[in-house]
Amino acid sequence: MNTQILSVGIVAKPRLNTAADLINQLVEWLEARQLRVWLDCETALIIGYPAGGLHREELPGKCDLLVVLGGDGTLLSVARLLGEKSPPVLAVNFGSLGFLTEITLDEVFSTLADFISGKISTQPRMMIDIVVLRQGEIFAGYRALNDAVLTKGTLARIIDIDVKIDGHFVATYKADGLIISTPTGSTAYTLSAGGPIVHPSLAAMLVTPIASHTLTFRSLVIPDRAIVEMSFQPTRETVFLTVDGQVGVELQMDDIVQVRKSAVVLDLIPSNTLSFFDILRQKLKWGER
Amino acid sequence: MNTQILSVGIVAKPRLNTAADLINQLVEWLEARQLRVWLDCETALIIGYPAGGLHREELPGKCDLLVVLGGDGTLLSVARLLGEKSPPVLAVNFGSLGFLTEITLDEVFSTLADFISGKISTQPRMMIDIVVLRQGEIFAGYRALNDAVLTKGTLARIIDIDVKIDGHFVATYKADGLIISTPTGSTAYTLSAGGPIVHPSLAAMLVTPIASHTLTFRSLVIPDRAIVEMSFQPTRETVFLTVDGQVGVELQMDDIVQVRKSAVVLDLIPSNTLSFFDILRQKLKWGER
Amino acid sequence: MNTQILSVGIVAKPRLNTAADLINQLVEWLEARQLRVWLDCETALIIGYPAGGLHREELPGKCDLLVVLGGDGTLLSVARLLGEKSPPVLAVNFGSLGFLTEITLDEVFSTLADFISGKISTQPRMMIDIVVLRQGEIFAGYRALNDAVLTKGTLARIIDIDVKIDGHFVATYKADGLIISTPTGSTAYTLSAGGPIVHPSLAAMLVTPIASHTLTFRSLVIPDRAIVEMSFQPTRETVFLTVDGQVGVELQMDDIVQVRKSAVVLDLIPSNTLSFFDILRQKLKWGER
Amino acid sequence: MNTQILSVGIVAKPRLNTAADLINQLVEWLEARQLRVWLDCETALIIGYPAGGLHREELPGKCDLLVVLGGDGTLLSVARLLGEKSPPVLAVNFGSLGFLTEITLDEVFSTLADFISGKISTQPRMMIDIVVLRQGEIFAGYRALNDAVLTKGTLARIIDIDVKIDGHFVATYKADGLIISTPTGSTAYTLSAGGPIVHPSLAAMLVTPIASHTLTFRSLVIPDRAIVEMSFQPTRETVFLTVDGQVGVELQMDDIVQVRKSAVVLDLIPSNTLSFFDILRQKLKWGER
Repeated sequence: MNTQILSVGIVAKPRLNTAADLINQLVEWLEARQLRVWLDCETALIIGYPAGGLHREELPGKCDLLVVLGGDGTLLSVARLLGEKSPPVLAVNFGSLGFLTEITLDEVFSTLADFISGKISTQPRMMIDIVVLRQGEIFAGYRALNDAVLTKGTLARIIDIDVKIDGHFVATYKADGLIISTPTGSTAYTLSAGGPIVHPSLAAMLVTPIASHTLTFRSLVIPDRAIVEMSFQPTRETVFLTVDGQVGVELQMDDIVQVRKSAVVLDLIPSNTLSFFDILRQKLKWGER
Repeated sequence: MNTQILSVGIVAKPRLNTAADLINQLVEWLEARQLRVWLDCETALIIGYPAGGLHREELPGKCDLLVVLGGDGTLLSVARLLGEKSPPVLAVNFGSLGFLTEITLDEVFSTLADFISGKISTQPRMMIDIVVLRQGEIFAGYRALNDAVLTKGTLARIIDIDVKIDGHFVATYKADGLIISTPTGSTAYTLSAGGPIVHPSLAAMLVTPIASHTLTFRSLVIPDRAIVEMSFQPTRETVFLTVDGQVGVELQMDDIVQVRKSAVVLDLIPSNTLSFFDILRQKLKWGER
Repeated sequence: MNTQILSVGIVAKPRLNTAADLINQLVEWLEARQLRVWLDCETALIIGYPAGGLHREELPGKCDLLVVLGGDGTLLSVARLLGEKSPPVLAVNFGSLGFLTEITLDEVFSTLADFISGKISTQPRMMIDIVVLRQGEIFAGYRALNDAVLTKGTLARIIDIDVKIDGHFVATYKADGLIISTPTGSTAYTLSAGGPIVHPSLAAMLVTPIASHTLTFRSLVIPDRAIVEMSFQPTRETVFLTVDGQVGVELQMDDIVQVRKSAVVLDLIPSNTLSFFDILRQKLKWGER
Repeated sequence: MNTQILSVGIVAKPRLNTAADLINQLVEWLEARQLRVWLDCETALIIGYPAGGLHREELPGKCDLLVVLGGDGTLLSVARLLGEKSPPVLAVNFGSLGFLTEITLDEVFSTLADFISGKISTQPRMMIDIVVLRQGEIFAGYRALNDAVLTKGTLARIIDIDVKIDGHFVATYKADGLIISTPTGSTAYTLSAGGPIVHPSLAAMLVTPIASHTLTFRSLVIPDRAIVEMSFQPTRETVFLTVDGQVGVELQMDDIVQVRKSAVVLDLIPSNTLSFFDILRQKLKWGER
């Protein structure tokens, strides 16, 4: 029995009304086990919870376990709120099977029970910290579970991105953009850009160009202790940094984007029925041509 | 002897001052052969031509032969000015070897002489006409030598593009964008996106997704008589059409982009020393790993 | 009404006993329409046809229409028997949907009726002729619907294949092998090797390396009037030519393999319900990630 | 000063007569520093060494440092002779720059001096042990620096390879073959098959199909502690295992090929001027299109 779990937070995708029944069942199930339940405001709204809700950012600090209901996007936005002492996360999938939200509706309670009783343990997922250095100062900072992406503005044809790893010059990538991703992110944008699939437990980062003009570039898989720096050569075009496909900022010439492993880790509770390979096989239709 | 050539136009990349000597030599060489020479304003400016210059758009109608000095970009912008009765084009490369501007500096005059004396003939390059249909009306029209590209706005992650060919639904592409290209364009953006190399004489068009989310998409090579239609599914993001990487327009929901073979053809004068395969081999470093 | 059809041949995959019912129904349906029916020996065996059967090779010369039952492999082996005056082919799929055998069991009779009544016409599929030149003489000759493939022996790591197109040197491919394919073959081995999908009506051939050591090679799509020559550089290893993945011959040093468009064409009767794009979408799961 | 180095072995590629001068200089340089020098028989032959040579397999056990002269192939064959207590290796490149033999001729003595004086340390390269299990018994065993490859016989079109990782079923790969590689091997055959580039210090293995029939397969990058098992489904064709592209064995139905990290490591002495990324950039022409 995992006696450290005293309070549980529930975060659903805003306005996910189809989750109302499950949220109510979860509240009942958890309270029946003497666990304190916290909802964020948006989730409370879905079920009309009398006690109202907390701000989403407050939840990680209040709970010993977080249940997230939605799709991979919901989990990404919750992951960015985590700190170094954040609770484990059980991510329940609404809609099509997600790479991240791998718990299906019919295994929610069995997985929850297995986790609380200590039968299954979490699968830590590496995150990355991204800082934008402008004139030597930290201009902005982000955390990502999947990736940090440097991209050209829409009307530009190509940008020249210089990459350094641990201070060593790697190459100038002439491309639509460049993705620095975690192993978890290898099945997201990196996969569309031609990258490999990296097991989430590997201590690695990936550097992958998007639509590279140079045909000999491939994804680079490097140790997670590496510090990756991206900058771009003079261009009349706008250049953007996006984080997990959700947060973005326009960059300026001479900005340096530095990416490294975060001290924060997402402790994901895995499915008790599907392995990582089972999920790959289903998502990528490996049984069929 | 090609007696139809009486007047020759010269267009250089604006402010390409390194071309001044060659322009002067060309003028002298052509006038020594009793050929009337026309320059556009920007080119006249480079050499301080006393008689001034024409507007670039006027040149194709005034000349029996056009000499273009610059890179592939210069040729693309000239190609878009051509009409159905346009003169052949000799494209001289300044800078690194171009896929299109394949005449090197030291073969300009020999190629010119060979062409005027009828020893070499032009290589017609198919162009495409692109129209944007908005509420059933033609909202905008373009012509391209390389490609028409539908792309997501910078901060969007993905768009859903519906493609029809000759009225038949092909697929919904979940991707960063989609490229419709000519054979000539197969060595441009399409190549970066993973497409094949199509011989410029083939009567074909290519449909190629950029960073497709669906991993089973490949370039489609279809007959040049096909009419390709692109539209996109509702999105909060901006979606753009760009033509030859140089001209762009923001699209609206329900816009239809229609692409078909143009009646206009670029009659390109080929190198008298390098074949298409020689150029590929040099540009793509096929001799080396 | 297509009055030219007087006799119909039926060829099933040998020992395809699940086809017995359909063969019997076909015989009955055709004879009811006063059409002469021919079976090959193997097909006759499946249904115990009293009149016995012909040798498979005799069928094309005896019939005005050929019905093939099996998978893509069965059709490939029948296609190689065709001559210049061969009958159209209706290819019925047993098993999973084929790229070539696109007629499903429940549309056999409606498609047959539509074809005989002249409502649908055939889709000609280009074939290629392959000759092996040894010491200047024709050593062997083949015909293929999909492809001619030069490959290294199993234990060799790599071979160096020289390619010429219309006498012009293209490149030396360091690779596991090289595929010359028709548009029809673009969805076969060529697709596995990274090639594009070429519409079957395009007058083209494809040159595609397998696991190329040089990373800048891509599929080349060239006009169907081209003559492609492959030869290989000295190696201690065995090198093979395979045709449609079914027929093979070991090559010797200095052999030249010449591939060109065949005068023979496969006149394939298309599905009356599915377009080429519908089949692609189903086979390649384009509706799903 | 690295006082543990008392004896040095030299192994050259057999009959590499262009290495004679360097071998003589090395012997002189080493003996001048009171180091005992051992040559293998083939190397002794190149310079007519009076004292003759040892068998190649004896060298690793006799020396505190091995100098290898040749190409990547020579190093691969030496690497397979190493045991758990093998000496570090300095690999000098003859010919074009190698991914493995990264010491150029003009930096041999400076690198040697830097290593002996303790200024540079080795870069350990993971190796893999491969066993073939036949009817539950170990039938054969190999060690590899680059890769273990399961491939179809030349005339087969495709084989179905079942892969398990740590006992979990991953997928059935329909392909020409499957490569299990080390990070070092990621720049060898795996790269030709479409895999990523993995930093040699990463604790990983790669699983990469060759010309996969299923288009959604990508390279899998997994932790080095994984045990990978390959077997193949019934086929009339021959199936082979090759190790580092140099050693091969024909497999039988129901054979299981098991691959895991070896206890043996190649301790490679790196260039004192070029980083891993510098070598990539040069070998893959990243400065150019």
